[in-house]
Amino acid sequence: MNFDLTEEQQMVRKLMRDFAEGEVAPGADERDRTKTFPVEIFEKMAKLNLMGLPFPEEYGGGGGDSISFAIAVEELSRVCASVGITYSAHVSLGCAPFYLFGTEEQKQEYLVPLCQGKSLGAFGLTEPQAGSDAGGTRTHAVREGDEWVINGSKCFITNASYAKFVALTTVTGRKEDGSPEITALIAPTDAEGFQVLDSYVKMGLHSSNTTELVLENVRVPADHVLGKIGEGFKQFLITLDGGRIGIGAMALGIAQGAYESALRYARERVQFGRSISKFQVIQHKLADMAMQIELARNMVYKAAWLKDQGRKFTKEASMAKLYASETAMRVCDQAVQIHGGYGYMHDYKVERFFRDAKLTEIGEGTSEIQRMVIAREIGC
Amino acid sequence: MNFDLTEEQQMVRKLMRDFAEGEVAPGADERDRTKTFPVEIFEKMAKLNLMGLPFPEEYGGGGGDSISFAIAVEELSRVCASVGITYSAHVSLGCAPFYLFGTEEQKQEYLVPLCQGKSLGAFGLTEPQAGSDAGGTRTHAVREGDEWVINGSKCFITNASYAKFVALTTVTGRKEDGSPEITALIAPTDAEGFQVLDSYVKMGLHSSNTTELVLENVRVPADHVLGKIGEGFKQFLITLDGGRIGIGAMALGIAQGAYESALRYARERVQFGRSISKFQVIQHKLADMAMQIELARNMVYKAAWLKDQGRKFTKEASMAKLYASETAMRVCDQAVQIHGGYGYMHDYKVERFFRDAKLTEIGEGTSEIQRMVIAREIGC
Amino acid sequence: MNFDLTEEQQMVRKLMRDFAEGEVAPGADERDRTKTFPVEIFEKMAKLNLMGLPFPEEYGGGGGDSISFAIAVEELSRVCASVGITYSAHVSLGCAPFYLFGTEEQKQEYLVPLCQGKSLGAFGLTEPQAGSDAGGTRTHAVREGDEWVINGSKCFITNASYAKFVALTTVTGRKEDGSPEITALIAPTDAEGFQVLDSYVKMGLHSSNTTELVLENVRVPADHVLGKIGEGFKQFLITLDGGRIGIGAMALGIAQGAYESALRYARERVQFGRSISKFQVIQHKLADMAMQIELARNMVYKAAWLKDQGRKFTKEASMAKLYASETAMRVCDQAVQIHGGYGYMHDYKVERFFRDAKLTEIGEGTSEIQRMVIAREIGC
Amino acid sequence: MNFDLTEEQQMVRKLMRDFAEGEVAPGADERDRTKTFPVEIFEKMAKLNLMGLPFPEEYGGGGGDSISFAIAVEELSRVCASVGITYSAHVSLGCAPFYLFGTEEQKQEYLVPLCQGKSLGAFGLTEPQAGSDAGGTRTHAVREGDEWVINGSKCFITNASYAKFVALTTVTGRKEDGSPEITALIAPTDAEGFQVLDSYVKMGLHSSNTTELVLENVRVPADHVLGKIGEGFKQFLITLDGGRIGIGAMALGIAQGAYESALRYARERVQFGRSISKFQVIQHKLADMAMQIELARNMVYKAAWLKDQGRKFTKEASMAKLYASETAMRVCDQAVQIHGGYGYMHDYKVERFFRDAKLTEIGEGTSEIQRMVIAREIGC
Repeated sequence: MNFDLTEEQQMVRKLMRDFAEGEVAPGADERDRTKTFPVEIFEKMAKLNLMGLPFPEEYGGGGGDSISFAIAVEELSRVCASVGITYSAHVSLGCAPFYLFGTEEQKQEYLVPLCQGKSLGAFGLTEPQAGSDAGGTRTHAVREGDEWVINGSKCFITNASYAKFVALTTVTGRKEDGSPEITALIAPTDAEGFQVLDSYVKMGLHSSNTTELVLENVRVPADHVLGKIGEGFKQFLITLDGGRIGIGAMALGIAQGAYESALRYARERVQFGRSISKFQVIQHKLADMAMQIELARNMVYKAAWLKDQGRKFTKEASMAKLYASETAMRVCDQAVQIHGGYGYMHDYKVERFFRDAKLTEIGEGTSEIQRMVIAREIGC
Repeated sequence: MNFDLTEEQQMVRKLMRDFAEGEVAPGADERDRTKTFPVEIFEKMAKLNLMGLPFPEEYGGGGGDSISFAIAVEELSRVCASVGITYSAHVSLGCAPFYLFGTEEQKQEYLVPLCQGKSLGAFGLTEPQAGSDAGGTRTHAVREGDEWVINGSKCFITNASYAKFVALTTVTGRKEDGSPEITALIAPTDAEGFQVLDSYVKMGLHSSNTTELVLENVRVPADHVLGKIGEGFKQFLITLDGGRIGIGAMALGIAQGAYESALRYARERVQFGRSISKFQVIQHKLADMAMQIELARNMVYKAAWLKDQGRKFTKEASMAKLYASETAMRVCDQAVQIHGGYGYMHDYKVERFFRDAKLTEIGEGTSEIQRMVIAREIGC
Repeated sequence: MNFDLTEEQQMVRKLMRDFAEGEVAPGADERDRTKTFPVEIFEKMAKLNLMGLPFPEEYGGGGGDSISFAIAVEELSRVCASVGITYSAHVSLGCAPFYLFGTEEQKQEYLVPLCQGKSLGAFGLTEPQAGSDAGGTRTHAVREGDEWVINGSKCFITNASYAKFVALTTVTGRKEDGSPEITALIAPTDAEGFQVLDSYVKMGLHSSNTTELVLENVRVPADHVLGKIGEGFKQFLITLDGGRIGIGAMALGIAQGAYESALRYARERVQFGRSISKFQVIQHKLADMAMQIELARNMVYKAAWLKDQGRKFTKEASMAKLYASETAMRVCDQAVQIHGGYGYMHDYKVERFFRDAKLTEIGEGTSEIQRMVIAREIGC
Repeated sequence: MNFDLTEEQQMVRKLMRDFAEGEVAPGADERDRTKTFPVEIFEKMAKLNLMGLPFPEEYGGGGGDSISFAIAVEELSRVCASVGITYSAHVSLGCAPFYLFGTEEQKQEYLVPLCQGKSLGAFGLTEPQAGSDAGGTRTHAVREGDEWVINGSKCFITNASYAKFVALTTVTGRKEDGSPEITALIAPTDAEGFQVLDSYVKMGLHSSNTTELVLENVRVPADHVLGKIGEGFKQFLITLDGGRIGIGAMALGIAQGAYESALRYARERVQFGRSISKFQVIQHKLADMAMQIELARNMVYKAAWLKDQGRKFTKEASMAKLYASETAMRVCDQAVQIHGGYGYMHDYKVERFFRDAKLTEIGEGTSEIQRMVIAREIGC
């Protein structure tokens, strides 16, 4: 066993810490307040060759491993979870499906520009009636000649306003048992009939981009199938396994950021003549935070490591996502509490972390779904 | 024993439910989004003679009891916690000190217009360095001739932008043991040197008014002492006991509102071919919510009942505030969870309830302070 | 509203407190260690006319209400939960079905001696394959001439070794939809073919009596039907509603006893030069215990009060049982923790309370079943 | 990073699993019921050269690492926590101090026979007035000529009835600041005036040996100092760091055993026509158990790995002990719950696991002490 990061992973840590502190942290509160998407940050990340970090260099990627990717998401989220989720979704939902299921041509056409940061990556899965229940998918595509004609809508889609194309799950037919045959299609966002609506008012993650997609007779060439016809659902499950490492890492970063703020505040805040970090109840809170973050970090890295080893990691990714997200919420809740009245105010970062953290318990499978996944994996 | 509300209390329930549904609920989301203080709602409440509900009719009050007051706060908060906290603070922090500690003249001069709704009530206690630690109070008043000259600042003061006067704790000397002698003084908010700053950016309660007070050489007549010189701290503890019933009732209302939203959503939302209210895990969540709200309600009403009986209710008020606020946060957290992605969006009320609920664990004594109060009362 | 006990209820409290302290507490540890059933205690209770406390005087009962019954169980369980559960089961499972569903003759024959303490009451419901699932009932009764012939077995039956007769659920036929027709029959425990086995080794409640019943061709007269043929399941649900108040009160008493022990120990135990009740973390634990017990007590009494009012109390009884039992377990867990190493040792009562408390989360419907009941009542 | 066990560690796992299943599991329930200490199991372990597993072969040890030791404790505790704690205390409290602080002669005289299993190891630290507060130590030793004369008593001492000698903390003087100078002395248990009392009645761990030591004028030669005079307290802290890995591993094993029982039971138990492992609420419980065990295991192994690397591991050992023990209690609690009424009965292993688990939250530093240790390490 070896719990140390490799030298390369440590370099990623240092690079991302510096980048996050220097380029992301400044303005994070302001961006949250004004709900501004920081395009320039991703341009800088592209210059540093970070947008395709865990993909092979031949596709413009950074050749890093999944642990390095997790570290990158963690460090970004430690100062700004909006940047963290944007990056995580770009890589694990936007890029990964092309890498995993794309033909060589598709990789060249889609993965390469994504890795180069010429487009952000987005993935169109969820629908109003189809959250965890893929069987509820209503967006459908009909083959007309050399084209697919897509109609339907998607909701809660990260990054689509900044994406040149998205992969979408669509119903392309019925299986023998009557269940929908789901196929992933690639659609350019500037196609006729394709609307990307950026109209959500969210609890947090204000400087990330969350959209609705509306598709009315959107036509794409027949070869715009990603992966295999009818395997869209299976592909989506595989994609989400990886995505959960991303959300787990995001949650971990939020928790770390909130914990550091709370520890700093507790040391500086004086009440009854001494630093409140000397009060036993505050100490226990901080000890619990530190412990939970340590546990979450081990779990996120272990899931990423299993992925890097080419082994099955479904259960561990769900555990990482579930535990890290619940840890983020607990830690942020207590971090606000330690700040007292100030914790409720935007001037203190924990107010933002608190709102941002809640999403990690919901996105890419709620905590309830993670428990179902784990239950299945342990043979219930 | 008798767990039924009296007829009068039931009438208050009905009146407040109707008023809340008819006048407060419409626009609550909009006010939250635009951070608009609903002056007109309090004007309507004044017309209904609600602004002084639990005070004697001779002072313009409604002659109601504390349970009725709790019901009023609960019903308002069930649809809009910003209105709930404004009303709760007005009554229990703004009006009550005049009723409890004021001379007959002061009651006529201050309590009567407050009960008539001609001013909102506000109470200036907390300071940047004096949260739970009254010993840290720095705002001070020096006697010069027939006047007090007040200097200092207060933070997190509810309602002050809409108050014609506030009662403030000030240091007016030192006791023999060197601890500060704290005295409550009454200051008109339009006095020279008195600034009320409405500049907080808060997590929630966006349509309530939270201010900083800055006092530079504010002069008030010598008789503007509320209660006794040197008893400001003791008076503040008594005032907060009552205030905790208000915050407890506010938390109860938030929990009730979030629970009803979640139950309704769970019945309507279909996944995997059936209402998600039929899924066992969702059922258990809703059952826990319902139970916790029932427990919180009993406790809030019991504390109010003890107050109405003229008995000691410090411990019970702290328990009511502590349990109701933690219940509100847990219930809102699970209500968001049941809504899935929609729970994170402003279109669904639970997003607002979630952010509003957090304040109840902080204001008028954090959960940690409540536990200290209870520990003292049980003889630790 | 009125949260005070009536004078009569206060008298029951005083009487039971004295009896518990004077007659039950001495020897409780010893009885636990030696697994001795305290027959003499119930003989004394019979002399005090307590064995039929909440039943009409015309049947030998005490004419008390359900709140008084809850107080009695609470006070007994505060010093010895084995005595508490014995008494609770006697009244609510043993006596109540005869009172609720018996004919006048059955009341005279069975309820009267139970109220007089000439027999303990027992109720034969659970079977190895039929816990929460009454549909799994296998004990069956066949009508032969003027007799029912009963075969089958029951498990986890309280008090049967000291009962002269038990009411049993049996399958007496099939309904049209194929589900079992369940009927309650009354069987004397000395009937031929009726074995009462006292062979369980339990975690706690060592001086209570828990048995298996084995019935081989047990013959009872045709008129030994309690209530109506085919209504055994419905009757059992009604009986359990009341039983849950009993278990809730038992849990409340355990929690109270453990809390008092912990508070006393915390005041006396000195570490680092001061009483550990002065350490903030210990104070918060004790404050949480006190609060939870207060909440549980309100809930148990409210459920009992509703029952006394003749109103529906199914939901409230489940809430009382669920919250009180989880409170008992939490409180005992923390009470052990406050005692440190001593808490693990039999010399300190909390060790016994801890083991006894666990049963309250299981008996008469597990916590999971209570949540199902509540979910149904709130309209999931 | 590498989360795989080494080949050697995997061999230890296999060896210990086989030994535990073959030699320890049979009779575990019986030993618990009859409170029998299984001397023969440790004789067999001695033959397999396991009693000194993590110590160098030159002292009769097995040359294994700390992870292997943790695995051994985990596998034993998975079937019998009494054997687990006996072994853990023997190694980490009994042997380790001689290895860490003993002279070469002392290692030969004491460590070698311990590693060979000729004596069990025991460590005399806790006293009635000195739990977490070493300053309360009253056992004292006075130098008379070439001897130390020891008087005092110790409580909660594991294994001493089967130990030929114990190391004891004693007060040998006062420091300049008045605090006690604490020194570890080695005393043979058959010394005149040395009594080992095996009289505790415990909640669980019934087949482990827990004793009181009473020393009246016990004389030991002057060279029986272990480590340095006045460093007994520091040495004890170092010893406990290692001991916490042992208790963490023990808790982990208990949790694993209880989880496996619960999963097996849930698959087999049928209610309402299907395996209860198909009910969503049971699935979520099992998923949470599995996740928490995974997290605990990572943490225990990481702490052990840090120790093996010769790095500071105080914080991680406390986290491992704290999280694993709270996990054990939670998992056992839910495992009992899943078993329903059977979970309360001795026939099902979870009843034993539940009682055994509670000790892990108390022994070698309560959960409250662990949080204090962590708080100190994170710089509160």
